[in-house]
Amino acid sequence: MQVAVPGWLEPMLADPPVLARRTDRMRLAIALARENVDRGTGGPFGALVAQTTTGRVVAAGVNVVVASHNSTAHAEMVALQLAEARVGAFDLGTAAEGPYELVSSVEPCVMCLGAVLWSGVSTLICAARDEDAHAIGFDEGPKPSHWVDAVGSRGIAVVLDLLRQESVAVLEEYRARGGPIYNASHAVLTTR
Amino acid sequence: MQVAVPGWLEPMLADPPVLARRTDRMRLAIALARENVDRGTGGPFGALVAQTTTGRVVAAGVNVVVASHNSTAHAEMVALQLAEARVGAFDLGTAAEGPYELVSSVEPCVMCLGAVLWSGVSTLICAARDEDAHAIGFDEGPKPSHWVDAVGSRGIAVVLDLLRQESVAVLEEYRARGGPIYNASHAVLTTR
Repeated sequence: MQVAVPGWLEPMLADPPVLARRTDRMRLAIALARENVDRGTGGPFGALVAQTTTGRVVAAGVNVVVASHNSTAHAEMVALQLAEARVGAFDLGTAAEGPYELVSSVEPCVMCLGAVLWSGVSTLICAARDEDAHAIGFDEGPKPSHWVDAVGSRGIAVVLDLLRQESVAVLEEYRARGGPIYNASHAVLTTR
Repeated sequence: MQVAVPGWLEPMLADPPVLARRTDRMRLAIALARENVDRGTGGPFGALVAQTTTGRVVAAGVNVVVASHNSTAHAEMVALQLAEARVGAFDLGTAAEGPYELVSSVEPCVMCLGAVLWSGVSTLICAARDEDAHAIGFDEGPKPSHWVDAVGSRGIAVVLDLLRQESVAVLEEYRARGGPIYNASHAVLTTR
């Protein structure tokens, strides 16, 4: 099992900020995605886990699939696992310092959607939509069309489109730079 | 990020067998699930990744969610990540020694379904069904009803019900022993 978090992310993980406004939390998630693109350390996706009430960030992640040789190392997965490790619980919903939220620069793919469910976060906040990821060639997988309701029925609130255009700009920068697009269909793996 | 593979699994991971018959591969996945229950190291789920042609096992995993404080540490996730680390590629579909298959003692939940798509395995083989996991209280999440077709359309064949009853017996043993059932709904977390 290997997930190599980029070196540039480590200082922030060691001393994460408190961001009282949710918009600022999303701005950070998108900034992480942009940094990942600019430094060439992975895909155009960033995420963080924060205490909803205080805004204290407890963990963050970026997509490190290629560098880590790990197809599960999406930004949301990295952030959720780091948060659980920090809190010392597999269910963030049971942690005394909660509730926690996942702030993601793009809607979760089907894998990360499942991970959100099992993580115990109380809220999921997204910037770019599935179709924005599709527009540059990424596959989000067979998410059920009613996914927001399905998540809601399990007690998790969903907020969409927070700073969507700022995240779309990072996706477009990634495409313009010719970053690798990888998918279930191996034929789609391209470096453009 | 922490995934503590149980000590009893390590000798097998260090020297994995070659099992020419697919049925024997599933028998091993189910045996791992049973061992995990019997030793109290996690949930009643086992999985492995094998070379389809030769039957060489390249990695295996069991559910270690509770022990690892990691809600993503399902058997399939552990097996896929260990396989990718061993092969040194985030896409098993590009590895020269493929094609690879994931052999899982229970149908994947929605998270693991996504992970299967992104892993590059060519075939998914399952024993117990979603409803068998539901019957003892586990939630598989909002998988689309057409998931087998959705996986198939991405070039991954699915085989269901291979040794289903043997896997169901492990699920029932887990319930009888009172193992913890954890889910998206925190209220459902019980130790019976």
